[in-house]
Amino acid sequence: MASLEEKRHTLAHLLAAAIAERYPHAKPTIGPAVDNGFYYDFDFAGGRPVKETDLPQIEEAMRDVLSSWTNMSGTEVSEKDARDRYTGNPYKLELIDGIVAAAEPITLYTAGNFTDLCRGGHSENPAHDIKPDSFVLERIAGAYWRGDESKPMLTRIYGLAFETKEELDAYRTQIEEAKKRDHKKLGKELDLFVFSELVGPGLPLFTPKGTMVRDMLDDFVQELRKPHGYQKVEIPHITKKELYETSGHWDKFKDDLFRIKTREGHEFAMKPMNCPHHTQIYARKQWSYRELPQRYSNTTACYRDEQSGELSGLSRVRAFSQDDAHVFCRMQDVKSESLKVWDVIHTFYPTFGFDLKVRLSTHDPEHMENYLGEIEVWDKAVGMLSELVDEKGVEVMDGVGEAAFYGPKLDFMAQDSLGRQWQVATIQLDMNQPERFDLTCINEEGQKERIVMIHAAIMGSIERFLSILIEHTAGNFPVWLSPVQARVIPVSDAHAEYAQSIVDGFVSQGIRAEADLANESLGKKIRAAKGEKIPYLLVVGDAEVEAKTVSVESREEKIGVMSVEDFTLRIVKEITDRS
Amino acid sequence: MASLEEKRHTLAHLLAAAIAERYPHAKPTIGPAVDNGFYYDFDFAGGRPVKETDLPQIEEAMRDVLSSWTNMSGTEVSEKDARDRYTGNPYKLELIDGIVAAAEPITLYTAGNFTDLCRGGHSENPAHDIKPDSFVLERIAGAYWRGDESKPMLTRIYGLAFETKEELDAYRTQIEEAKKRDHKKLGKELDLFVFSELVGPGLPLFTPKGTMVRDMLDDFVQELRKPHGYQKVEIPHITKKELYETSGHWDKFKDDLFRIKTREGHEFAMKPMNCPHHTQIYARKQWSYRELPQRYSNTTACYRDEQSGELSGLSRVRAFSQDDAHVFCRMQDVKSESLKVWDVIHTFYPTFGFDLKVRLSTHDPEHMENYLGEIEVWDKAVGMLSELVDEKGVEVMDGVGEAAFYGPKLDFMAQDSLGRQWQVATIQLDMNQPERFDLTCINEEGQKERIVMIHAAIMGSIERFLSILIEHTAGNFPVWLSPVQARVIPVSDAHAEYAQSIVDGFVSQGIRAEADLANESLGKKIRAAKGEKIPYLLVVGDAEVEAKTVSVESREEKIGVMSVEDFTLRIVKEITDRS
Repeated sequence: MASLEEKRHTLAHLLAAAIAERYPHAKPTIGPAVDNGFYYDFDFAGGRPVKETDLPQIEEAMRDVLSSWTNMSGTEVSEKDARDRYTGNPYKLELIDGIVAAAEPITLYTAGNFTDLCRGGHSENPAHDIKPDSFVLERIAGAYWRGDESKPMLTRIYGLAFETKEELDAYRTQIEEAKKRDHKKLGKELDLFVFSELVGPGLPLFTPKGTMVRDMLDDFVQELRKPHGYQKVEIPHITKKELYETSGHWDKFKDDLFRIKTREGHEFAMKPMNCPHHTQIYARKQWSYRELPQRYSNTTACYRDEQSGELSGLSRVRAFSQDDAHVFCRMQDVKSESLKVWDVIHTFYPTFGFDLKVRLSTHDPEHMENYLGEIEVWDKAVGMLSELVDEKGVEVMDGVGEAAFYGPKLDFMAQDSLGRQWQVATIQLDMNQPERFDLTCINEEGQKERIVMIHAAIMGSIERFLSILIEHTAGNFPVWLSPVQARVIPVSDAHAEYAQSIVDGFVSQGIRAEADLANESLGKKIRAAKGEKIPYLLVVGDAEVEAKTVSVESREEKIGVMSVEDFTLRIVKEITDRS
Repeated sequence: MASLEEKRHTLAHLLAAAIAERYPHAKPTIGPAVDNGFYYDFDFAGGRPVKETDLPQIEEAMRDVLSSWTNMSGTEVSEKDARDRYTGNPYKLELIDGIVAAAEPITLYTAGNFTDLCRGGHSENPAHDIKPDSFVLERIAGAYWRGDESKPMLTRIYGLAFETKEELDAYRTQIEEAKKRDHKKLGKELDLFVFSELVGPGLPLFTPKGTMVRDMLDDFVQELRKPHGYQKVEIPHITKKELYETSGHWDKFKDDLFRIKTREGHEFAMKPMNCPHHTQIYARKQWSYRELPQRYSNTTACYRDEQSGELSGLSRVRAFSQDDAHVFCRMQDVKSESLKVWDVIHTFYPTFGFDLKVRLSTHDPEHMENYLGEIEVWDKAVGMLSELVDEKGVEVMDGVGEAAFYGPKLDFMAQDSLGRQWQVATIQLDMNQPERFDLTCINEEGQKERIVMIHAAIMGSIERFLSILIEHTAGNFPVWLSPVQARVIPVSDAHAEYAQSIVDGFVSQGIRAEADLANESLGKKIRAAKGEKIPYLLVVGDAEVEAKTVSVESREEKIGVMSVEDFTLRIVKEITDRS
């Protein structure tokens, strides 16, 4: 039985066969399997081009041909035979040049009456292996030959392919849903952030509503950290390069840094992370073991000189806000301190309905030359993280060899409502920077003892977390996080005063409510509120004024008439519980 | 009667006379009056140098000579006579070169038996005019001839001089006090901030305590702004240079900007102010006049490429945090919106005991070519600020011609406890950026109407305000702002449990308290707490445990024994009242 990748690769051939039948002038080039399907690039020059609207017919033609492909096999041919077959197709000839230069065999694969130059890796019986309803042609795009702008522009036809129609449909639904939830689109509709041509790409500006959401997310993290003894610190966003020469970041990340030459000719950099700065706060005095751990938290921006082409909404930016924290402690405290971070992570993410998976990333004992420090120290550190994970009784993915060179770590993956996995938080042990910055405490014996650092960001990048959260919730933030929690809509002007009095009552109790007193129809106001994904709409007319009630509608359903007091109890509970 | 400046200048001569008597080899160079006194630069090469310990004797010699200086007058002399007199003194000869080159008269001034090359400006009867106890010699410093590093190093003797001994003493006391209060020294002692060699000068890092104070100051400002409808926004700290080309800052401040060339070759800059970014948040949609004013507040860092030599503690830094805000409104709202900022400023500064003075900085109607826009618009804007000031009934300094080119402003000066004046807040009207960024609203007639901006930072730079506040209070922050508000000290181990229980009670009520349970003497613990300027020390021994009381000492005095409840009421009231 063929693998899914082999089937997808076979479908690329099938597409080429269907095109060859209907567009004999089209020159086939290459057609690989890709994630979720396949594509094939053609040169349609000198004849009828293909259009999106032609795809259903081509798809049908593929299904017709498929039934006759009961066998697919390859034959090795001579260079001359291969070249003769592709006279007039410079793309295939160029591929043959490459195969010859690499001294590899030239193979042709045939199924039905269609033959293609190919390395192999197909279904041997496509008609049997591939379900006719398990694939579709998706779309057409332009693509330069070999991705090179100086080469001809080809036509790429993308197909989606899965084992079954059900899997295909599920994927297409997920894509449709993801498109509707695109955080760039929703961010604008919900008025959360904006990009400016003048400020530049990758540099989002946050509106009042977006800033409120950012701040509430960060406040939540700080609230969870507080009982664990974290203290806020503040640092400048630039530094002399000497800081990063000492930390080792200059060598490693020089090209990713925004670098600055001052008027006096000194070299500065904008910070790509906060740990080196935080070491300088720790290093201001000689600590006793009694004063440790020192736990510094600091929500602050980091900067990376990303390529324009890699920027995308809030997912990949040039300036991002990290809800960063560093714990300076003794090696013996690693387990207990990591446990605190673990607890924060395991309260934070489930609050939003994310499922978490954990990976323990450790050293490869066969290759200790890749790591800083002695294996005994590593074994001890990993031992502490393992104990922690064992105590928690969760299933943990094994990441032998996945540790950073400076220490082992726990990586956390969040699964969103569309089933997508996002790498989110890490608990990272760092034995390197304490060494490089000579960070110590005086221990019980009055001796200087090397300490370790734990990197403990919870969201990591607030911008990236916000992009994930917007798509996870489709913009339907939980009530506690919604910039406007309730909107009161009077049926007519006669009910405006009552509406405003309810809002005033809410606001005095810390509920973010507003009245919509605009001169518009009720229907239009309700649609506007739904568009803004406001959790609760309270419509008030004669009956409500009389009975001191509100007619409540949530984003999901009509809840019905209730007293102002009952509604207040309900929403305050939801806010308090962060439910 | 001579002016103070003439007396100071005369005293420089008197110093030179005393030096000439006792150090005949010393070559006099120049000796002007300066703020607070005078100095004279000598070249002591080729003989005995002068030492700090010699100053009292020289001072006495000056007083002896002074009594004989009943007349001081000048004579014009020929170049030859002047040169003959100063054969062997290359400094005076160089001065004569300069006078000759400028074609000015060469004058010699004589008093008693001492003559000096001088332009004039002295007391005519020093013995009568100058009180012998109104001056002292202060200190010795090195100074290059003409301030030029390539020229010889001279010895500068500084003197302080005032009208009377009382004024002199007052000044010396102020200086002594200011030295004790130096925020750089206190910042370290109170563990508020730290500088790192690796991060670089002008880039302070804030410790947990310093961060707490910064945040509380900023929270106070935000709390005062909130009822006025300000909304927080957030912006990146960098931008494409296009933003500043549009705003006009690129041309004006190019050299003060930290500039960045990205890996793709684009020019970016770190923001030196926030207004251009904030315009881009305003510009995200077309506003109706009904939705105005939009009031954006944003505490965020700004950056200036200052010269190393100009940096000083927190007073002058390369990265500072601005508690910035911008109001986007119609011209007709300028008065009411400025009033809101005025009220915030006049609540904020008096809370700390600062007296405020106000200057109204307006356009010069004779030179409208220096300003953007028509005089009618300016008259209207100034009219609104004047009305505001009139209503407030405060005395206002007149600043005709002191406006920025883009709008009139109100400048606020705070006087600290040492009598020093600091320029602090401004309310600044800006008609320029709305023009350059084409910011409008749709008015009642459905027409686009140009809006204006009001710049409304309260502290300006949090770092600079903190430096002023530390020196103003000598580190004795008001209780509400103190990182530790109360420290409980048990007389012995036997009282530790009681001490801790009191602290727990305080903490649960939001009072920042801690117990000092270290293995040290009571005296040492009390001295430590005083050194940290903790507002309240609560000592607890047998009597206090028995009676459920605390023995209270403030920074100023012993208050005495009181019940825990009474102390709690007292401190909570002080915190709540910010008294």
